Amino acid sequence: MLSISQYREAFLDHLSAKIKTKEPVNLYEPITYILQLGGKRLRPVLVLMSAEIFDTSYKKALDAALAIEVFHNFSLVHDDIMDAAPLRRGKETVHERWDLNTGILSGDAMLINAYQLFENYEGNTFKELAQLFTETAIQVCEGQQYDVDFESREDVEVADYLKMIEYKTAVLVGASLQMGAIVAGASQECKEAVYEYGRLLGIAFQLQDDYLDAFGDPETFGKQVGGDIIENKKTFLYLMAVKNAGPAEASQLEHLYSINPSETSGKIEAVKHIFEESGASQLAREEIRKYTKEAFAVLDKIELSESKKDLLREFGASLMEREV
Amino acid sequence: MLSISQYREAFLDHLSAKIKTKEPVNLYEPITYILQLGGKRLRPVLVLMSAEIFDTSYKKALDAALAIEVFHNFSLVHDDIMDAAPLRRGKETVHERWDLNTGILSGDAMLINAYQLFENYEGNTFKELAQLFTETAIQVCEGQQYDVDFESREDVEVADYLKMIEYKTAVLVGASLQMGAIVAGASQECKEAVYEYGRLLGIAFQLQDDYLDAFGDPETFGKQVGGDIIENKKTFLYLMAVKNAGPAEASQLEHLYSINPSETSGKIEAVKHIFEESGASQLAREEIRKYTKEAFAVLDKIELSESKKDLLREFGASLMEREV
Repeated sequence: MLSISQYREAFLDHLSAKIKTKEPVNLYEPITYILQLGGKRLRPVLVLMSAEIFDTSYKKALDAALAIEVFHNFSLVHDDIMDAAPLRRGKETVHERWDLNTGILSGDAMLINAYQLFENYEGNTFKELAQLFTETAIQVCEGQQYDVDFESREDVEVADYLKMIEYKTAVLVGASLQMGAIVAGASQECKEAVYEYGRLLGIAFQLQDDYLDAFGDPETFGKQVGGDIIENKKTFLYLMAVKNAGPAEASQLEHLYSINPSETSGKIEAVKHIFEESGASQLAREEIRKYTKEAFAVLDKIELSESKKDLLREFGASLMEREV
Repeated sequence: MLSISQYREAFLDHLSAKIKTKEPVNLYEPITYILQLGGKRLRPVLVLMSAEIFDTSYKKALDAALAIEVFHNFSLVHDDIMDAAPLRRGKETVHERWDLNTGILSGDAMLINAYQLFENYEGNTFKELAQLFTETAIQVCEGQQYDVDFESREDVEVADYLKMIEYKTAVLVGASLQMGAIVAGASQECKEAVYEYGRLLGIAFQLQDDYLDAFGDPETFGKQVGGDIIENKKTFLYLMAVKNAGPAEASQLEHLYSINPSETSGKIEAVKHIFEESGASQLAREEIRKYTKEAFAVLDKIELSESKKDLLREFGASLMEREV
């Protein structure tokens, strides 16, 4: 087995070999651009690692890993249009560097390309991969739709929010692990268990990401701290605070989430204060712990050597270990 | 075998049964809307007819037919955004009735749904269908990109144009016929031959559509006659006229294609005059005849009873028979 950074290297070599700009250049250049922008490549690394954990060379899983990364980047290109985001990983987004139409069409081609990458697998493996991919991709679209809907809905519940992040983020983590297991021909039980591990870890990760958005260290968080508060995003923290705060605080919070001041630091501090006072931040930390624990409990039950479980545990721990 | 209108009925029943608005409603309602807008349903009818020609009940091909129609409508939704088109089949386009983001995301979900519709076919048939679908879908994207590129390119050749319409329109007609043959388990030779018949017929059809855009009868054409001229579209007629007209006429034509007058009838008449005088309209009629003849010649060689070939011939003839 290789280390995480070695899997990443192997994946990046495969990406460079397979993703080339060809004719029509205006369709394929944006695809090469976004795929070479960087990022941690967590999902493809999980595909490769999972294949090896189930006793198959990661090399057999490279195309599946690339399909997952191409899909993930497709969703970034289209989401960035929907969010009117100017920057992605500190560089111009595709629709900003080219234009709206290029963003739409190159994104479409990426989604189709992702399916194409499964074609090197034989009939039944192909079908299993494509079916998992389709189910996951539909859920990611549904998650994105729920996210959009929540902006204008006043009746969002914590359970709705958890379903949204599960669909938008977590299922793709589960699918990445399951794809490696499919390529390796693992048992149905193992395939389901690694999916479940990834799904639960993905929810924990997204909850933590939302938590750090408010309470993270600006030095290490990577994104603007307070971004969700500025955008009035109905995250776990917000929904729990509205539910658990006293009437005065709750209506103050709702008021703060109805305004868009140009000077944001006062609003951010006031909101964070209510998050703390209402107990929402405490509840968020507990929820993160709960999902992380559930994920590790699933791992315990998989029929797999302890040394291999340790690799999955390490990956999960490193994912959740970011500084608060 | 059923008649074309009976296949259409059977297809529409299947569409209504399978395409339902579910949660999240804002994602699925636009999909139901665009798929119920109408249209001739040519492509799905071809899938069903092709299955029966190769001795399999059309019922086995209903899901493949629906996949083709869902994909076709996905491309309409995204193309209408790119063209900023307010209307489709006389009704509001999706991005107009809802908004840009809905158009993008519902389109994405349709593309994924199309793949999902192949899942009722077993492993190898599934792979064959999905592979043909992927190859075709990528070509449709590339064709759309070439179409966009041509707007700002001054060096478009007739051969470039023919490749563009082949990719953007004709390959999906070929793929529709081949899908029916795949579902029916037809021989490789037959699968290739019906694809080729559809591809050539598709080119002839698109050339005729462009021809009728200039010279069609406003009573029967269905779209605004002169639309391509108003939009300065570099169609076969334009490219041939620039190539074959004398220097004075050619530069007059290029001038006419650089302006966007609010009163369009003078421009349309002047352009049509050059199309006629330069021989371009004559060349277009010949090119349409050439592709139609080639398509029928392919049909002659397929190993199939004459009565079944007649059905394909009738379909082709009815497609090309529109009034000039």
